[in-house]
Amino acid sequence: MYSFKNDYSEGAHPRILDSLIESNMVQEEGYGNDTHSKNAISKIKELTENQNIDVHFISGGTQTNLITIGAFLKPYEACISACSGHIAVNETGAIEYTGHKVITVDSSDGKITTEKIQEVLNSYVNEHVVKPKLVYISNPTELGTIYTKKELENLYDFCKAKNLILYADGARLGAAICVKEADLTLKDMCDFTDSFFIGGTKGGALLGEALIIKNESLKEDFRYHIKQKGAMLAKGRLLGIQFEELFKDNLYFELAEHANKMATLLTNELKKLNCSFLVNSKTNQIFPILKNELIKKLEEKFSFYTWKKIDDNSSAIRLITSWATKEEKIHEFLSEIKKHN
Amino acid sequence: MYSFKNDYSEGAHPRILDSLIESNMVQEEGYGNDTHSKNAISKIKELTENQNIDVHFISGGTQTNLITIGAFLKPYEACISACSGHIAVNETGAIEYTGHKVITVDSSDGKITTEKIQEVLNSYVNEHVVKPKLVYISNPTELGTIYTKKELENLYDFCKAKNLILYADGARLGAAICVKEADLTLKDMCDFTDSFFIGGTKGGALLGEALIIKNESLKEDFRYHIKQKGAMLAKGRLLGIQFEELFKDNLYFELAEHANKMATLLTNELKKLNCSFLVNSKTNQIFPILKNELIKKLEEKFSFYTWKKIDDNSSAIRLITSWATKEEKIHEFLSEIKKHN
Amino acid sequence: MYSFKNDYSEGAHPRILDSLIESNMVQEEGYGNDTHSKNAISKIKELTENQNIDVHFISGGTQTNLITIGAFLKPYEACISACSGHIAVNETGAIEYTGHKVITVDSSDGKITTEKIQEVLNSYVNEHVVKPKLVYISNPTELGTIYTKKELENLYDFCKAKNLILYADGARLGAAICVKEADLTLKDMCDFTDSFFIGGTKGGALLGEALIIKNESLKEDFRYHIKQKGAMLAKGRLLGIQFEELFKDNLYFELAEHANKMATLLTNELKKLNCSFLVNSKTNQIFPILKNELIKKLEEKFSFYTWKKIDDNSSAIRLITSWATKEEKIHEFLSEIKKHN
Amino acid sequence: MYSFKNDYSEGAHPRILDSLIESNMVQEEGYGNDTHSKNAISKIKELTENQNIDVHFISGGTQTNLITIGAFLKPYEACISACSGHIAVNETGAIEYTGHKVITVDSSDGKITTEKIQEVLNSYVNEHVVKPKLVYISNPTELGTIYTKKELENLYDFCKAKNLILYADGARLGAAICVKEADLTLKDMCDFTDSFFIGGTKGGALLGEALIIKNESLKEDFRYHIKQKGAMLAKGRLLGIQFEELFKDNLYFELAEHANKMATLLTNELKKLNCSFLVNSKTNQIFPILKNELIKKLEEKFSFYTWKKIDDNSSAIRLITSWATKEEKIHEFLSEIKKHN
Repeated sequence: MYSFKNDYSEGAHPRILDSLIESNMVQEEGYGNDTHSKNAISKIKELTENQNIDVHFISGGTQTNLITIGAFLKPYEACISACSGHIAVNETGAIEYTGHKVITVDSSDGKITTEKIQEVLNSYVNEHVVKPKLVYISNPTELGTIYTKKELENLYDFCKAKNLILYADGARLGAAICVKEADLTLKDMCDFTDSFFIGGTKGGALLGEALIIKNESLKEDFRYHIKQKGAMLAKGRLLGIQFEELFKDNLYFELAEHANKMATLLTNELKKLNCSFLVNSKTNQIFPILKNELIKKLEEKFSFYTWKKIDDNSSAIRLITSWATKEEKIHEFLSEIKKHN
Repeated sequence: MYSFKNDYSEGAHPRILDSLIESNMVQEEGYGNDTHSKNAISKIKELTENQNIDVHFISGGTQTNLITIGAFLKPYEACISACSGHIAVNETGAIEYTGHKVITVDSSDGKITTEKIQEVLNSYVNEHVVKPKLVYISNPTELGTIYTKKELENLYDFCKAKNLILYADGARLGAAICVKEADLTLKDMCDFTDSFFIGGTKGGALLGEALIIKNESLKEDFRYHIKQKGAMLAKGRLLGIQFEELFKDNLYFELAEHANKMATLLTNELKKLNCSFLVNSKTNQIFPILKNELIKKLEEKFSFYTWKKIDDNSSAIRLITSWATKEEKIHEFLSEIKKHN
Repeated sequence: MYSFKNDYSEGAHPRILDSLIESNMVQEEGYGNDTHSKNAISKIKELTENQNIDVHFISGGTQTNLITIGAFLKPYEACISACSGHIAVNETGAIEYTGHKVITVDSSDGKITTEKIQEVLNSYVNEHVVKPKLVYISNPTELGTIYTKKELENLYDFCKAKNLILYADGARLGAAICVKEADLTLKDMCDFTDSFFIGGTKGGALLGEALIIKNESLKEDFRYHIKQKGAMLAKGRLLGIQFEELFKDNLYFELAEHANKMATLLTNELKKLNCSFLVNSKTNQIFPILKNELIKKLEEKFSFYTWKKIDDNSSAIRLITSWATKEEKIHEFLSEIKKHN
Repeated sequence: MYSFKNDYSEGAHPRILDSLIESNMVQEEGYGNDTHSKNAISKIKELTENQNIDVHFISGGTQTNLITIGAFLKPYEACISACSGHIAVNETGAIEYTGHKVITVDSSDGKITTEKIQEVLNSYVNEHVVKPKLVYISNPTELGTIYTKKELENLYDFCKAKNLILYADGARLGAAICVKEADLTLKDMCDFTDSFFIGGTKGGALLGEALIIKNESLKEDFRYHIKQKGAMLAKGRLLGIQFEELFKDNLYFELAEHANKMATLLTNELKKLNCSFLVNSKTNQIFPILKNELIKKLEEKFSFYTWKKIDDNSSAIRLITSWATKEEKIHEFLSEIKKHN
């Protein structure tokens, strides 16, 4: 049974493990004050071409989202998210637990537009309702779609004009940046958001997300927030070492590139079989629409999520590839489809 | 510069790294549903001789404390802790952030007594004050002292009689269990608490604590709490693999035994030099009282915390040994003392 | 300028003020333990025909909602509300501040159906999402519509079967009960919910809501919750005296009856003028659809909210009547309309 | 049975009730935007000689404390209070529920000193512990003692120098101001704090506290905080009318003066009987030390709290007088003591 359920089914890229072994017996300071974390931060400042950012390493995506949003907002302020946003759907109310409402806007492709944000602003105008203050986007979105550089710039300009914080969840950021049409770099992510994170867990690390805070007003005492939410690892080196390695020799983007390539291979071959898709994704998550009978057959040999009922006979499934996906498995999957088609 | 500051200055025990490498490319379910986590849970059930416990793996100690206390208590309920308790002092208000008051009781050795608990119960009696409901102990305490089996049993009986939850922070639990005079086993920890955790971070792992919940009424939907606090790792295998290895062939206790042995060596040699101690600790944290001048000299070659001013000329320092402490470093430290004595 | 903006523009019914004066200099226990609160509780138990309920008096509706929902739910549990529900829209994130998500379901008339609840249950099934646990309804709804006895009974049976708590916001409960077609009594409200409150603020009191908790499992230590949220008045007598008076000689229902009657008068006369309405309300909130030009003219002499744009030329306005509405003002309003029609 | 248990056993001063009646049928805006609230705010600005303050009316003291502290502090910031402070003892963990730790400092007279604050600052220095940010004082304290103008000025200067917020709980503020030795005015309270409140509930009103915010950085969006905590009354006029009346013709201070005078009468007569006191209070709360046998006798005719065991034979009791205390009751109480002495 081979799994296309997600991009965290395997451990870490071997180079990361090597790096852990090599550094293992050297004594380091705790709590993120180790040399590896410092090196990784330097590397990220270099890649974003911004020496003034703050960088913090945090174990996972939900953890990062709840710490940032809890830190950035005053008690009565709220965030705006696409209805499919991870914070709106899949975090067990983590944001609400920090006391903040998540205002959702409709979106068929997982993206959020300035028009939708403006509609929210129009209807939240006094102290009887929450005050929208932060726009949460994910790039790529939970549907595999991406924001181009131009789109992100527009969104950021709009947010600045409206005194809103733009925060981007980059759990799979590598996949977005590796799509050429996006014309997007780490520097752009930094230039056109107030804060964002670079996902390690889904990008080849054992765990860890690198949070970047650019907006000066959001930086103060951030380590207190991390500690208070239980997210400051005693052996912070574990996160530092991994990001140090991921950003060495472009490894992070090579891994994302591979994941995208595997998904594109699947997409192209499926299109040849006249398969249609729920959304047009160029990243490592794709949502082909298949006959339910075929899905059942496939489930005998592969694991994946059935995402959405399309009609009585067919559904969209979600297939995720990763840095660890073997091309042969893609072909096996396609063969299985052809066999039953 | 060699560090006795803490027991998390190095990476992980080599067997743990080997284990990560060996399992690395096998696909596993996410979120703690992997085979390694299941194996580790089985092993813990065996060691506690209790098949009915629930076991959850969580990244760190503060994280574990805030999730459990937040889960176990109703909004108006409070916990009782020694004034030196980790939740009272060193968690940046993490427990208060979950909404709960930490009621502290005086303690010179870091331990808590039934008399002190009863005093609290006597003065918290109606809805104008919080309702004490959970007793937090750490074993070993933050001062290296331990609860014997008999003491723990008494405390547990008292708590049951008073309808209080007894919860033990075992960030360094191995060290407590390896002290022979304690006469305490993992089974005893389970028998005489409602819930406790076995620390991995300070016991040879990269990160991770194994939380045991025995009390049936505290188990319900616990995974929701873990997820909501951002503590459910996508690659839960990372925690499972480590505890699987730590509980294989008694590794966990061997490592704790070594740490204790190194501390005892320090203690015995320092006593020969007529050194006195802040508390009588038999675990891997010791608090010798030294002249301030000597402390300054030692700081040139070793790092450690100066814990408490004793008088104008002397202070107690904290020395922590670990699974990774080399005996030669102990001797170097002692030589340095002798040189300046 | 006469106001139809709400039902809390005046002070209290004169009988309530008389009652405050009469009891003023008698010493009473604080915090709701006074004789008046006790009398009012007895009276409510009589009217609900249930001696086992717990009754608490709380200052306002948002206050009551946040205390109850915060008390009834575990941290990861959520409530389900119509999208127009007061807790979803008009409480400045008060429920989220207590840590709980409000899951909204579409509703054109402000009511919630078992089908909508079932849809939510179908999609919230594991620990990666919140656990729906409480169904919040308002009766009358924020659109003036009501639940009949039969509808409420069905909803309650459904909730019980699904292990959900049914909680009703009765800020204007008198108005719902006084609609004959509803066939609903205070006893029915108690029989067919787990908890509900009877609004005083909008029913002739200076302030105050009477919260009823019937479900045994929700009663424990409720006064702790009230105190912790800052809602336990030192002079609890102020609330007790008012409810004691409101439930004497049927005053509460007479006042609601009057408010409904005034609204019905408006409705009937407007219908004669071929006016249409946003929803079909038989209570004291009505939503006639008028030409924008006419609305402007009316605003010169009356204050009210313009609720919703219908098309480029017309909008629905909200008119609220109350125990204090004078019939002559209704006629003046109608005259003004006729003048410009 | 006459009660000296507290200063909220009766209703409101008759002039307040008259004022409620007189204004009753006039329509007013809701939520504190009524003409009476505006008048009361003007009056308070006049008395504090500060036109730039913000004033909000809130139902009770705990409510006010939890809203202000929750609004003023960031999640990881903490408040410092005397161990006897109302927020530390008698608010059922309301402050912790907002997520903030209350750091207590020892105090035998209920007051807090700059030395004690400095000790706290010395030991809270990094992100592993909370960050002390707000100093909470009560004036008078929970033991009836007061801060003089000079003491308050020193405290405020110290707080400003240390970047701390000074916030004063004035539940019984009138009593403090009416002590001549204090040399303190409402203007001083405003000049030498960042924020404070003037208690109405214990000063002759049915309910209500007037919160003053002077520090510009604490004012923003404060009404959102009030609404979110459920504390914005629909009929805000109820609070406005009362404070309008209390600050007319010096009524508020006349009532406090009476309360103090009754307490001083008690104190002086008790001293003649060689009675000693737990603390030296010149306000309306006094703590005479009496033989336990005598206390039992007194309890047959009067109600009051036994505050603290002094030795096996005697205890301190708490006697509170108020605007409503009748001088004849003081004499009856004293006669009863003399009878049994």
